[in-house]
Amino acid sequence: MEQNKDTSKQNWRVYLHEVIFEADTYEGKAFDVILLVAILLSVIAVMLESVSEIKAEYGETLYIIEWFFTALFTIEYIARLIVVTKPWRYAISFFGIVDLLSILPTFLSLVLVGAQSLLVIRSIRLLRVFRVFKLARFLGEATQLTSALKASRPKIIVFIGGVFAMTVVLGTAMYLIEGGENGFTSIPKSIYWAVVTLTTVGYGDIAPQTVLGQALATLIMILGYGIIAVPTGIVSAEMSKVKEYHPITTQACPHCGAEGHDSDAAYCKKCGGRL
Amino acid sequence: MEQNKDTSKQNWRVYLHEVIFEADTYEGKAFDVILLVAILLSVIAVMLESVSEIKAEYGETLYIIEWFFTALFTIEYIARLIVVTKPWRYAISFFGIVDLLSILPTFLSLVLVGAQSLLVIRSIRLLRVFRVFKLARFLGEATQLTSALKASRPKIIVFIGGVFAMTVVLGTAMYLIEGGENGFTSIPKSIYWAVVTLTTVGYGDIAPQTVLGQALATLIMILGYGIIAVPTGIVSAEMSKVKEYHPITTQACPHCGAEGHDSDAAYCKKCGGRL
Amino acid sequence: MEQNKDTSKQNWRVYLHEVIFEADTYEGKAFDVILLVAILLSVIAVMLESVSEIKAEYGETLYIIEWFFTALFTIEYIARLIVVTKPWRYAISFFGIVDLLSILPTFLSLVLVGAQSLLVIRSIRLLRVFRVFKLARFLGEATQLTSALKASRPKIIVFIGGVFAMTVVLGTAMYLIEGGENGFTSIPKSIYWAVVTLTTVGYGDIAPQTVLGQALATLIMILGYGIIAVPTGIVSAEMSKVKEYHPITTQACPHCGAEGHDSDAAYCKKCGGRL
Amino acid sequence: MEQNKDTSKQNWRVYLHEVIFEADTYEGKAFDVILLVAILLSVIAVMLESVSEIKAEYGETLYIIEWFFTALFTIEYIARLIVVTKPWRYAISFFGIVDLLSILPTFLSLVLVGAQSLLVIRSIRLLRVFRVFKLARFLGEATQLTSALKASRPKIIVFIGGVFAMTVVLGTAMYLIEGGENGFTSIPKSIYWAVVTLTTVGYGDIAPQTVLGQALATLIMILGYGIIAVPTGIVSAEMSKVKEYHPITTQACPHCGAEGHDSDAAYCKKCGGRL
Repeated sequence: MEQNKDTSKQNWRVYLHEVIFEADTYEGKAFDVILLVAILLSVIAVMLESVSEIKAEYGETLYIIEWFFTALFTIEYIARLIVVTKPWRYAISFFGIVDLLSILPTFLSLVLVGAQSLLVIRSIRLLRVFRVFKLARFLGEATQLTSALKASRPKIIVFIGGVFAMTVVLGTAMYLIEGGENGFTSIPKSIYWAVVTLTTVGYGDIAPQTVLGQALATLIMILGYGIIAVPTGIVSAEMSKVKEYHPITTQACPHCGAEGHDSDAAYCKKCGGRL
Repeated sequence: MEQNKDTSKQNWRVYLHEVIFEADTYEGKAFDVILLVAILLSVIAVMLESVSEIKAEYGETLYIIEWFFTALFTIEYIARLIVVTKPWRYAISFFGIVDLLSILPTFLSLVLVGAQSLLVIRSIRLLRVFRVFKLARFLGEATQLTSALKASRPKIIVFIGGVFAMTVVLGTAMYLIEGGENGFTSIPKSIYWAVVTLTTVGYGDIAPQTVLGQALATLIMILGYGIIAVPTGIVSAEMSKVKEYHPITTQACPHCGAEGHDSDAAYCKKCGGRL
Repeated sequence: MEQNKDTSKQNWRVYLHEVIFEADTYEGKAFDVILLVAILLSVIAVMLESVSEIKAEYGETLYIIEWFFTALFTIEYIARLIVVTKPWRYAISFFGIVDLLSILPTFLSLVLVGAQSLLVIRSIRLLRVFRVFKLARFLGEATQLTSALKASRPKIIVFIGGVFAMTVVLGTAMYLIEGGENGFTSIPKSIYWAVVTLTTVGYGDIAPQTVLGQALATLIMILGYGIIAVPTGIVSAEMSKVKEYHPITTQACPHCGAEGHDSDAAYCKKCGGRL
Repeated sequence: MEQNKDTSKQNWRVYLHEVIFEADTYEGKAFDVILLVAILLSVIAVMLESVSEIKAEYGETLYIIEWFFTALFTIEYIARLIVVTKPWRYAISFFGIVDLLSILPTFLSLVLVGAQSLLVIRSIRLLRVFRVFKLARFLGEATQLTSALKASRPKIIVFIGGVFAMTVVLGTAMYLIEGGENGFTSIPKSIYWAVVTLTTVGYGDIAPQTVLGQALATLIMILGYGIIAVPTGIVSAEMSKVKEYHPITTQACPHCGAEGHDSDAAYCKKCGGRL
């Protein structure tokens, strides 16, 4: 535990870690709430900028706001790198990469017009602030959800594989039946239509016109309506198996910033550092 | 229990409470049925008034009907306030507010044209009359439904949060791929499209035209088709856990008008008054 | 059991009952298969007649076919009335009414043009012929399905009631936000749109154009996507409770023609006659 | 076991069988991966050929690619026939027929223009290569899925039968209400619309215009939204019953090529030959 030795520099780092990564203290909670508001505002600013009428009138203001938030998030990113004892592990973690991608597009927009739209990646950061409200409970639920989804993954891959082969064959059949004059101009487009129909989305930009085409379309729709039961059945069955409630703390590892540790864990499950 | 002292005024109030809030006696049932019909008629009148051809011909008649029902419901609202011993508690309860909102728009329409359309809020009042038919059973079912939904709320919030971030990122990607000439004129509009597609609604007012856009749309659709399994799985699992049947009476509290008391309850769970 | 006394007339009636109502003997099976084919052919003929190009060319032939099948089904209907000992009970049963409705439209078309389209009611008769193939099993499954649906009926009525109130309020909100120029010309039409959206059908004949309208539409879609989980959860939970397999025979009551008797039943559960 | 006698010819055949049908050895895995890539490339080539712009430019190259892959798959098909000891049993198995259908269209295209589109049938072959990745597990999952679907088949047939009769009756009702001027030109087309609506696909190419038609459409939509719960409930209930994990090997029978044998099986369940 040499890293935690009692110097004032270490104390200062531990304190900052508490504020930035945790939501247990008053300062930590305040930091998370401010961050949440900043992310929301910056995402809204990016969205507004894409509306041409708004850009024409308030373009300059939005430009300044954009750089202001980018500066803020850049400082935050650097602070996060400093307070964790294993910066590299944080940098390559999921949220580390998202944090980086949340500031890069603004700098990129200097050389590439339109790149600032990528700033909406920031919205993924909102997921982190679930910790602020009723923290442990939501994290536990997310873990339950994830584990149920993981358990049903192989079944779902088999299912998606089957559905994919089905849409390829059905789409091609429609291409042969309807032909280009009714919008089914190529096999890829017909497969696109088959997916639109099978998933019950049904845009209507392409729709069968011949009697045979409509008959096959009817079949595909009923098929799609029926097989939606399969993934649902898989997840439902998995979901009702997940019974034991697995308590989780909201504490983040002071070394690498990883979250989701069990409430009785003493060491980080990602980097092995003491919590 | 001083409020229930045996004066004739109190007796009269208890009797009216029975009629207005309960459906156990003959008068109480009759009151509820008449109320149900009046609400239905008044909602239909409001709807018809919005159809321009009908308004042109029967506008005046509908105007009179509107004021007639508003007068009726105003009297009913005042009566409800009088017969409960704690009027304030009733006034700020869910149905108390709905009852008030059901009469306000007519008065508001005197100063604000078109405000009477808000009268359709009355349709929410219909929910109260479930008590008339096989009362306890339906109330019990509603409670079961509500408790299952409440138990799955944290999981569903996590899920909605994830879906929201997903639509923001996917919508922006489509905005960059398709651009304004294919209808994706701004990020908010593209997010709107992403939600339309992910939820399998698929209006078709905006639809991808480029090959890359259609490929991404295909992915979003299959994703939407797959993840619909998640909320269903959550509710199903919760639903099958709710086993014990919780008997509930249709009796409303004579003090604050709250409903949904357990059949063995002696005191109101909302205001503590004796039932 | 005087009705079953051993006269030749009774024997002939019992034999015909076996042929027409049962599918256990060779003749009974043959009768059901012929009936199935006849129903299918007649329904197809009615459908073809509605296609104007086909009617123009083969109208007369289809007219003759129509009368031929109507004559056939009329004879069959009379035969059914004769072979059951309690004709009135058969006549007012579900399938008795369907059988009657399957022949009436042709006669009605003599005075009312277009009435023959109602002949498609015959397709409901197809449900009866499930007995021909692996009979008892399918009947048992249908009973299981029906009992699961019946058990979840009160919950589903509460749910539909809530959804109805929701669409009325949301539809009116859209009527106020979007107005007539965007297709939301009246409250009933806006409610129609709200149902189209909430159920994820999404025709796209009416679609919100204003930013506020699209925002509210987004909300409705996510809501619809989420609450589809509720009926599914209800039925799933009910379905997994239905465990005991309830064996059922395909024998129809010789007195009133009622079906779905338990395999150990000795008397008809509808009219009390001996099976 | 005379077929397995120790001659060098038999040894060579056993080795080739290992490579082509199994994925346990290094060579077997390599063969499956190469096959997977070849199938994918050839399906993509067929799809690209259907896009007119691409065909105009690279038509000749795609033509050569098509014949190259057909030659490859023909050799593979013959090899498969040789290495199994009961070629006929392989030839009439599901994957045997798919393998044949994957090469026939190219030869057919010599006499019938456009027949090469049928080559997309090759995509079904992709299902076989699930064995390459985490083989036994996926096969087990597929078996679980299939057995759950098989168990719920009778219930689903009853359900589809009911839905079919419903769409026929509702479609005809809409035909009578809306009539040809609103797009409901014939009963078959109206039934097509009813299926589009009931399955919540909702193209919008045909949409009700009259008030009565929209009211009925609203009913159909709510119905469709409600009854989607039925197949889901069926499969969910079946899915949660399938508990025992049935271990399965990826070994294919050396005599007929059948797969999906239990891990403790010593003889092929299809042809009885020793594994």
